[in-house]
Amino acid sequence: MTNQNQLAVKSVLDTWNGRIKQANEIFNGLTDEQLQKEIAPGRNRGIYLLGHLTAVHDRMLPLLDFEAQVYPQLDEPFLTKPDKAVAELPSVKELRTAWENVNSKLTEHFNKMQVDEWFQKHSAVTAEDFAKEPHRNRLNVVVGRAGHLAYHVGQLVLLK
Amino acid sequence: MTNQNQLAVKSVLDTWNGRIKQANEIFNGLTDEQLQKEIAPGRNRGIYLLGHLTAVHDRMLPLLDFEAQVYPQLDEPFLTKPDKAVAELPSVKELRTAWENVNSKLTEHFNKMQVDEWFQKHSAVTAEDFAKEPHRNRLNVVVGRAGHLAYHVGQLVLLK
Repeated sequence: MTNQNQLAVKSVLDTWNGRIKQANEIFNGLTDEQLQKEIAPGRNRGIYLLGHLTAVHDRMLPLLDFEAQVYPQLDEPFLTKPDKAVAELPSVKELRTAWENVNSKLTEHFNKMQVDEWFQKHSAVTAEDFAKEPHRNRLNVVVGRAGHLAYHVGQLVLLK
Repeated sequence: MTNQNQLAVKSVLDTWNGRIKQANEIFNGLTDEQLQKEIAPGRNRGIYLLGHLTAVHDRMLPLLDFEAQVYPQLDEPFLTKPDKAVAELPSVKELRTAWENVNSKLTEHFNKMQVDEWFQKHSAVTAEDFAKEPHRNRLNVVVGRAGHLAYHVGQLVLLK
């Protein structure tokens, strides 16, 4: 019999993988030109959402205590600032590569994790706070980020 | 020390509750007229997404073995058929009430659940299949539906 903690981790990771697959299908189905379009009039462009998701997933690498962020230069244009506030953005081609790269790194780390390790603290919580709030663990980060991804995938489908 | 299965359930339910709160803030911040608008040109209207989410959450009641579906009449206009395929829809007012009602019922049932019960099979899987695929449990339903909600919340914010 499989343990409940193991089953819960599987549910979360299956959801994560499913959403990444869906996002990849959308990004791969859109041309660079289509990604320059807004998801709705006056709203974020596809390129901004691609950069935004890449930056958020990149930051999961240190947050989950895996490794350093790979593309800190994406923080300003895609996290700190809103769309259209930064004139010079990386190309869609560069962002596509970065997106694939950070997700591959995450998957590689996820696949090495033992179930218990998902319940260890993430790096943005102190040991003291974690003792009081043990739900602030690595699994919880992935639950939250999977929701963030679903939110933006719901917007990206509008570019099709 | 809290058990890992309990912590995982908390992560999922916290996420669910957070998304419901966010959706309510959006719905309550939009007038009935605003909900008649499309989220983007040629796309679903707000009223359709309100009905769609209500129908999906309503069907979680039997799926999670809690109780019978309350509004089966919403299936055809909001699940089976796409937006604008059914001429006569319930009013936004009626849908707002149904939305609040199904979510209250879900919360009420969620609050009564013991941790172990989240790992029991949901009603759409047979006992035989569940023995082989124990991740097809009630918690997994909520993980999936929380993602579905996030996806559409990402679209509903475009109505603001």
